[in-house]
Amino acid sequence: MKFNIALLAGDGIGPEVTEQAVKALDAIADVYDHTFKFTKALVGACAIDETGNPLPDDTIDLCKESDAVLFGAIGHPKYDNDPSAKVRPEQGLLKLRKSLGLFCNIRPVKAYERLIENSPLKREIISGTDISIYRELTGGIYFGDKHLSDDGQVASDGCSYSVEEISRIAHLAFKEAQNRRKKLTLVDKANVLETSRLWRKTVTEIAKEYDDVALDFLFVDNAAMQMILNPSQFDVILTENLFGDIISDEASVIGGSIGLLASASVGSTVGMFEPIHGSFPQATGKNIANPLASILSAAMMLRHLDLHKEADAIENAVEKSLELGITTGDINPKKPFTTTKVGDFIADYI
Amino acid sequence: MKFNIALLAGDGIGPEVTEQAVKALDAIADVYDHTFKFTKALVGACAIDETGNPLPDDTIDLCKESDAVLFGAIGHPKYDNDPSAKVRPEQGLLKLRKSLGLFCNIRPVKAYERLIENSPLKREIISGTDISIYRELTGGIYFGDKHLSDDGQVASDGCSYSVEEISRIAHLAFKEAQNRRKKLTLVDKANVLETSRLWRKTVTEIAKEYDDVALDFLFVDNAAMQMILNPSQFDVILTENLFGDIISDEASVIGGSIGLLASASVGSTVGMFEPIHGSFPQATGKNIANPLASILSAAMMLRHLDLHKEADAIENAVEKSLELGITTGDINPKKPFTTTKVGDFIADYI
Ligand SMILES: CC(C)[C@H](C(=O)O)[C@@H](O)C(=O)O
Ligand SMILES: CC(C)[C@H](C(=O)O)[C@@H](O)C(=O)O
Repeated sequence: MKFNIALLAGDGIGPEVTEQAVKALDAIADVYDHTFKFTKALVGACAIDETGNPLPDDTIDLCKESDAVLFGAIGHPKYDNDPSAKVRPEQGLLKLRKSLGLFCNIRPVKAYERLIENSPLKREIISGTDISIYRELTGGIYFGDKHLSDDGQVASDGCSYSVEEISRIAHLAFKEAQNRRKKLTLVDKANVLETSRLWRKTVTEIAKEYDDVALDFLFVDNAAMQMILNPSQFDVILTENLFGDIISDEASVIGGSIGLLASASVGSTVGMFEPIHGSFPQATGKNIANPLASILSAAMMLRHLDLHKEADAIENAVEKSLELGITTGDINPKKPFTTTKVGDFIADYI
Repeated sequence: MKFNIALLAGDGIGPEVTEQAVKALDAIADVYDHTFKFTKALVGACAIDETGNPLPDDTIDLCKESDAVLFGAIGHPKYDNDPSAKVRPEQGLLKLRKSLGLFCNIRPVKAYERLIENSPLKREIISGTDISIYRELTGGIYFGDKHLSDDGQVASDGCSYSVEEISRIAHLAFKEAQNRRKKLTLVDKANVLETSRLWRKTVTEIAKEYDDVALDFLFVDNAAMQMILNPSQFDVILTENLFGDIISDEASVIGGSIGLLASASVGSTVGMFEPIHGSFPQATGKNIANPLASILSAAMMLRHLDLHKEADAIENAVEKSLELGITTGDINPKKPFTTTKVGDFIADYI
């Protein structure tokens, strides 16, 4: 089969790690007789540098015409500490999510047996953890009205959610729970926020259609604690945009390396697949960044395109690289392999 | 000296643990020749049950006339899963914070050597951790306009901050940093939120008055990760209300027991002192709840009243109880002491 893939490598280590994912996909194409046509486009700081716009229209058009989007990372330190910058790389990512209708971000969190010792948490705490986090991605305070008073003295952000926005992701999360261990935890702050109360009410209502799934609720502060005290209690977690941002980054420590965590963003149209790590400026261009998260994002992409054997092949190759210690310095500080060497191994093994 | 203390024991285990703090304070009064006059008042679910109001006016008046407020916990399960309840215990706590102008919540997080093995985190990760979290407590999305559309389809919460609200707590946090290891980390989401950008700008400006303090910034998602990966990097953390709620509960796992964490809320007038744990309904009335957090809150209160020797005496007694294992089942599951026994030991030791 033939697939058009939009390649948005972005900033920092984005290009280096995405290149390894492309290698893996090229190997898959060879073995399973597919064609992946990759087309590059700009997003983030590099897009600002070249065009003044963190998300040029060409990039949106390309994504909409593609079968999937493979995303690297965005962000550059020169924008981070300048709160007054009118144009920022993140705007590109947020606008892309909105333009493509990617309302559902899925982040699997798993304790890889081979990496358990790398985790800051004790083995007995994380062993067996296998969570799927469903984060709403195109609503909430991220996309509310922002305002700064003329005298610069008062700033505000609006947060809102509609029953429709909550329902569409809730259905996806309940379906995922049905395919897993049949438990869904809604994380909110219903004791304080009106939007959270609407989440709780709507999700409670929808739960009636999924009576094989056990639903429970956790306030976000308690969830942040439970994620560390007892992560294996969770199956599917459903939550709004900002809470999902915080909780899923927190959960990333469980696996022992953020360099292994992939995510999928899906919704109305084309899906987008990206590592959860950022642009990691300190490592840029040094050939030391861990490409496995990007490679596993490619596997998530294949699964989304219904190429399950092919996705398995990538995941097996990643397991093998962990088993043999053919990994970068973040996982394997004593005998680190370079980014490209890890990518080569994965491609060869496939 | 003579002090009037308002005693707001609240719900669940609140009364049992507060009673032990009172015992400790009575012992202090004996030894150091002070008088503490305790006056009880209602707040939370018990106040709703008795008066229909989670924070009766009498309670506010009493607090305003007192030298300090000793608070237990609030919350009852019968309100948690009822998003439509118009009157809820939490409203009492939020209104109390607002009425007393308690804009600054201070939560110390420490890895007690004797409890390190109880932590879900590895010893080498948490050893030496000593953080002071400054959470803004009377602004942000907690107190913004809340709205539900007439058809019940759209809910919203407003979040706003003024330069004045940010400045007053920032000054307190910088002063704390000057008395500690001279590092201050602002946790925000300045890459997305207008309010966070105002925080960053205002705090950067104020930092010029404290040039012996090193200021850095962390996005809240990254902070949630760093808190687990490397908590000892932090000295003073400054953050807005909602982020502080999440990050400080997350940080509570470091110490190995939430049953030991106290907090102070200060601001324009009288200070309020409370354990960070909640009302823990499952343990209510069983004489098993850990009273140490409440007792340590009393110590924070004494320090705030400038009774430093007296505060030390309580803290030493707590250290001793940990050393001898005279603690409740959450810390000491093999040979648990009851709530009252732990309280008696502390009072006797003083
Ligand atoms: C870069 C930033 C805007 C983004 C977010 O907060 O959504 C990132 O943290 C993420 O989680 O993808
Ligand atoms: C009970 C609740 C409203 C409260 C809060 O969110 O502030 C609690 O979690 C706390 O941190 O004191």
